Amino acid sequence: MEQIVYVDGAFVPAADAKVSVFDRGFLFADGIYEVSAVLDGKLIDNDSHLARLERSVGEIALALPETLPRIVEIQKELIARNGLIDGVIYLQVTRGAVIPRDFVFPKEAKPTFVMFTTAKDIVNAASAKTGIAVKTMPDIRWARRDIKSVALLAQVLAKQAAAEAGCQEAWMIEDGQVTEGGSSSAFILTQDDVLVTRENSSAILPGCTRKAVMKLAEERQLRVEERAFSVSEALAAKEAFITSASLFVQAVVTIDGQRIANGRPGPMTNRLREIYLEFARATAV
Amino acid sequence: MEQIVYVDGAFVPAADAKVSVFDRGFLFADGIYEVSAVLDGKLIDNDSHLARLERSVGEIALALPETLPRIVEIQKELIARNGLIDGVIYLQVTRGAVIPRDFVFPKEAKPTFVMFTTAKDIVNAASAKTGIAVKTMPDIRWARRDIKSVALLAQVLAKQAAAEAGCQEAWMIEDGQVTEGGSSSAFILTQDDVLVTRENSSAILPGCTRKAVMKLAEERQLRVEERAFSVSEALAAKEAFITSASLFVQAVVTIDGQRIANGRPGPMTNRLREIYLEFARATAV
Repeated sequence: MEQIVYVDGAFVPAADAKVSVFDRGFLFADGIYEVSAVLDGKLIDNDSHLARLERSVGEIALALPETLPRIVEIQKELIARNGLIDGVIYLQVTRGAVIPRDFVFPKEAKPTFVMFTTAKDIVNAASAKTGIAVKTMPDIRWARRDIKSVALLAQVLAKQAAAEAGCQEAWMIEDGQVTEGGSSSAFILTQDDVLVTRENSSAILPGCTRKAVMKLAEERQLRVEERAFSVSEALAAKEAFITSASLFVQAVVTIDGQRIANGRPGPMTNRLREIYLEFARATAV
Repeated sequence: MEQIVYVDGAFVPAADAKVSVFDRGFLFADGIYEVSAVLDGKLIDNDSHLARLERSVGEIALALPETLPRIVEIQKELIARNGLIDGVIYLQVTRGAVIPRDFVFPKEAKPTFVMFTTAKDIVNAASAKTGIAVKTMPDIRWARRDIKSVALLAQVLAKQAAAEAGCQEAWMIEDGQVTEGGSSSAFILTQDDVLVTRENSSAILPGCTRKAVMKLAEERQLRVEERAFSVSEALAAKEAFITSASLFVQAVVTIDGQRIANGRPGPMTNRLREIYLEFARATAV
């Protein structure tokens, strides 16, 4: 089946899914994106992603291209048209295409709105069973990491360096502390059974899966602390894991080649993954 | 006359100049750009821009889409096809379009190569006569500003804030010092007649026009110092100006509403603009 992509009101084959070279997403990274998981054809934790979308576009004075209910309708139609069962749905809004190129916001810009799906077996991912290897990288990103913009070159370079080192994620380090993963939130479980993840600020993206996992953990009486942690604290931890919309919860078993605990996914990580999966399926729409 | 744009080997009308929504320039800001001026249909200081292009793509492990001589051929053909007399020619190379979206470099990616022109009377720009107003903004960009990438959202936001304050450029401030303009290099002329501009490092883009102006000034026995300067030093200076490929040399007459000297372009700035213009015309190809 040919992949269908949504571009500015039209559902078109992937090969025809194009934007102008004058699009400000292409020229200036002047755009915002979101990724929601799909299980059994249904959207996972989607309200949380759309709330973050609304916040991100607001932070760069960009209007939503459609109302939130209409965005959900388009998401559902695109899932149906692609027959997507399990995977992710990606959406991106940019400040549109304007000639001539100029940094300053155009007076009359029609936002560009793009959406596409990717099939992926998130639940049975092999890396969920084995855990992943992480490489640390200096966090060289800009100061507004709370905005989910498409200015992702720093993350691309960090994740590429991780891949070249045989790792599946980069953990970015600033002032001796972990900020977050290249495209995920970072957690550890201390020897005292406290779940630790960095507090939200402009230093990190406010992760939707991070937020859901924290809430689920607290509901189960687990102690959760929002604070920065160092790599050495992570290496001394009982367990470590990452969260993201397209991975849910995945154990981190090594950092820069050094094992965490016995180098296998820990029981709390596995339990939180199960709990998140239950939550995801129970609240899917 | 309809504008013609170059896209991956083809010269097409602007309305048909498109790239895939899966292009990594659009999704990840995974691309590099350059802008060269055009006077009387000829390229200005173009070798310097292409040398910087080659360096920038190398820094992100991206291949040049064509040899440098072939790039010049395409530039010249595009200038001819658009009948461009005075203005700029923009080029952008990205890591290409690949499905599915993944941060890590694709194994087989064909770079995307785009080029377009914009007509503009650089020599007789009104702002060259009046000078421009500058607004200071915190420099919130990433740590590799020496790479001329399209991850420009921070510059877009800074220049938009400047425009909303009635200014034509933002000067970005880090640790109390001016780094550079949103899309230009920053210079001052001290009361001792020393030309000061920040030294090249990963904190700023190595400006091509900056480099040419420094060389031209030194050839004329002007003392040039490469070091950081503060806004208060700039306000106490004899003159201040910016340089860029699309503006050449333009006086800065106010910073955050405060005048520099008498609030008019200074004689040294005007002289350097003339000298740069002579150089540009004499070396145009």
